[in-house]
Amino acid sequence: MILKVVTSNPGKVEEFAEAFSGMGIDFEHIRIPYDEPQVSSLEEVVEAGIKELRNKGLSDFLIDDSGMFVDHLKGFPGVYSSYVQKTVGNDGVLRLMDGVPDRSAQFKCCIGCCVKGETVIVTGVCPGSILHEPRGEGGFGYDPIFSPDGERSFAEMPLSEKNGISHRGRAIGLLRKELGERGFI
Amino acid sequence: MILKVVTSNPGKVEEFAEAFSGMGIDFEHIRIPYDEPQVSSLEEVVEAGIKELRNKGLSDFLIDDSGMFVDHLKGFPGVYSSYVQKTVGNDGVLRLMDGVPDRSAQFKCCIGCCVKGETVIVTGVCPGSILHEPRGEGGFGYDPIFSPDGERSFAEMPLSEKNGISHRGRAIGLLRKELGERGFI
Repeated sequence: MILKVVTSNPGKVEEFAEAFSGMGIDFEHIRIPYDEPQVSSLEEVVEAGIKELRNKGLSDFLIDDSGMFVDHLKGFPGVYSSYVQKTVGNDGVLRLMDGVPDRSAQFKCCIGCCVKGETVIVTGVCPGSILHEPRGEGGFGYDPIFSPDGERSFAEMPLSEKNGISHRGRAIGLLRKELGERGFI
Repeated sequence: MILKVVTSNPGKVEEFAEAFSGMGIDFEHIRIPYDEPQVSSLEEVVEAGIKELRNKGLSDFLIDDSGMFVDHLKGFPGVYSSYVQKTVGNDGVLRLMDGVPDRSAQFKCCIGCCVKGETVIVTGVCPGSILHEPRGEGGFGYDPIFSPDGERSFAEMPLSEKNGISHRGRAIGLLRKELGERGFI
């Protein structure tokens, strides 16, 4: 089976290929623009994307969307994480959290997969907290200010360790389980 | 001529009716949900909305979208002003601007109007600055922290005065001019 990964980021294709290696799925990179609506959850973004891509005639594909949700900020930056990172950035999130005792946050990754006419949507969650200052050289985006264990930031962890516990890693694990239970792999 | 105002806010219909009074246009309130995509400008949001509503068979209608764009924050909160207001709010914007000397910002309102098969898109801009603390009891949203003259906030002005210089007031003025030049009013 071939699954098309609809993304502007070719790195994601390798990540899927590695996670599903030996399971009889080949992943193919495909770029098709689709709208991401202004809604309140990743699941709604992914559902809208799937609907649009299916209307365009695409089959056997997957898309995903991720975001960081800070409890004290009512879920901000949430589905707009990418925009907020490009504008106010990590410095802005730290300013918004200055002096705030409740630092709990979640990284979430939602993957939507259409395979043989069926749609599977899974969401991986990595709970953690917002650090008081950026730490580490690795990672990207919010990685330096988010810690899954309250000690090290995502940016301080080796990639393999981060992938094992990250929202994306967990979403991929859930997808593998769902596709297995439905007999696709 | 009847123009349908597609909005969830009936107050907007009265505002248009008043601004165009005696010009031979009746405004009718209509609620049709349409997607607002995650894009970088109000014009793109409005263009997408018009396309979707035309595809749904609607004619002779108008929609609008507004936002506050802070220069130092690279345009944040911009097209996501409504979401940011609901989450981090005015307090959050003031935190992000704490100690920042460049306080310039713009309120923008984009109106898209489809009339007799033609599309008119206008954008009204009200330049101003972010105050150091909220001021005034009137207005809504960012009004208490935005000042068009560096002295009073929008929330401290009588509504009639605010409407005369606001982004919405200016957009409505531009729309009236465009519709006049095209012979619709």
